Amino acid sequence: MIGVVAPVPTMVPPPGQAVVTGTIHGVGLGPGACDLMSVRADRLVRGARHVAYFRKAGRPGQARRIVEGMLRDDVIEYPMEYPVTTEIALSDPRYNDRLSGFYATCIDHLAALALGGEDVVVLCEGDPFFYGSFMHLYTRLQGVAPVAVVPGITGMSGAWTASGAPITWGDDVLTVVMGTLPEADLVRRIRDTDALVVMKIGRHLAKLRRAVAAAGREEAAWLVEYAAMAEQRVTRLCEADAVTPYFAILLIHGQGRRP
Amino acid sequence: MIGVVAPVPTMVPPPGQAVVTGTIHGVGLGPGACDLMSVRADRLVRGARHVAYFRKAGRPGQARRIVEGMLRDDVIEYPMEYPVTTEIALSDPRYNDRLSGFYATCIDHLAALALGGEDVVVLCEGDPFFYGSFMHLYTRLQGVAPVAVVPGITGMSGAWTASGAPITWGDDVLTVVMGTLPEADLVRRIRDTDALVVMKIGRHLAKLRRAVAAAGREEAAWLVEYAAMAEQRVTRLCEADAVTPYFAILLIHGQGRRP
Repeated sequence: MIGVVAPVPTMVPPPGQAVVTGTIHGVGLGPGACDLMSVRADRLVRGARHVAYFRKAGRPGQARRIVEGMLRDDVIEYPMEYPVTTEIALSDPRYNDRLSGFYATCIDHLAALALGGEDVVVLCEGDPFFYGSFMHLYTRLQGVAPVAVVPGITGMSGAWTASGAPITWGDDVLTVVMGTLPEADLVRRIRDTDALVVMKIGRHLAKLRRAVAAAGREEAAWLVEYAAMAEQRVTRLCEADAVTPYFAILLIHGQGRRP
Repeated sequence: MIGVVAPVPTMVPPPGQAVVTGTIHGVGLGPGACDLMSVRADRLVRGARHVAYFRKAGRPGQARRIVEGMLRDDVIEYPMEYPVTTEIALSDPRYNDRLSGFYATCIDHLAALALGGEDVVVLCEGDPFFYGSFMHLYTRLQGVAPVAVVPGITGMSGAWTASGAPITWGDDVLTVVMGTLPEADLVRRIRDTDALVVMKIGRHLAKLRRAVAAAGREEAAWLVEYAAMAEQRVTRLCEADAVTPYFAILLIHGQGRRP
């Protein structure tokens, strides 16, 4: 089903005038504050007749939340609701099947709009090409409809800015890992880097704390929640007992060469 | 000399009115295109009476180049020219001495402006807290004058967006290293990661090519020059013979789990 395009709405252009194909813009919105999106993103979002965004069923969606108050009065919204998130194990073949079908449906809709002459802005938290959901649309849209990407400030940039300390200096090595990795892999990665960023912490906080402690770096680890948002909070990992890690990123700052 | 503040210009406020201390803003400008800076950065840059920026002696400076045409007519510019870049070896004690003295002079000037009531915008390529020069000012300004930081889109985000492919998927590990590392360290890091970013390539291109080949990943490596600028160029590393790697970033894209 990947890449199959739904029937394009019939549009009869005036004589001598062809339908101009629209573009699907994957637009990075940055870490959370609406004035941290780029000038290019701001212009696209405010001018968009069609916006699309991923969200969990029943939730407003973080990307949509960031642009609250910025959209045109006559905007047409297309929320793309994930059919599964954590109910089916990643290893279960049904997980991939259901997600693939879901992406195909999204592509059909977006491509039909573009081929009918409409531009579409897909709202993306952070940077679209950095662990983003938009990439699953992007690859499937190749050869189907024009796609453009606007980079954004990553959530991790928002987090280290919130922490009030530079993440990397001089020749520091920075490693970015997901909290979903096995504990032994986390320990090894945490030991073997100058600076560290851990994303997708979610239900993995206890494992992550054990891994940071096993790597001997508990004193240097910080947890940043809701970076660049009103609820922003920065906590030492060793004091993070009561933390509910939504939009949480763990940081260990590099201490590299500096004059 | 670190943190020593020059005498503050004597300002006698009108009776009953105190001088309000200004703020030194470290403002991330993003990877190069002026519409890829954040709305917050755009507002600060356009409104600034005082801007400061690093540059090599005799060069216009990349940060200054990005804001060309955006500054106020009555802006006062303070270029901070590095006293050394590559003429003295990093290991030579004179290197640190000269840079420390240079930073102290910059701090004196910026702090005097802020304590005299003026805001200052320090123009920073990319993101100020990510391998940026501003960090050397930031740490020295703590307790001396108010400092604020605006994150930016990193040069590496600009590079992977230019490459037309996502850098990381699913549980990919991303490693960011500098081309200045010893060759053996580069080989080990390139072998041991899903996705890779190498910055500060400069005169290290030949070493880097050997390291990528030794790690068996030459086919997957891309060189991006001048990302998000008019001269943008994306080349396979194995075809990069004639490349002059200014503003160059090497990428190996992750190929992680995807439905």
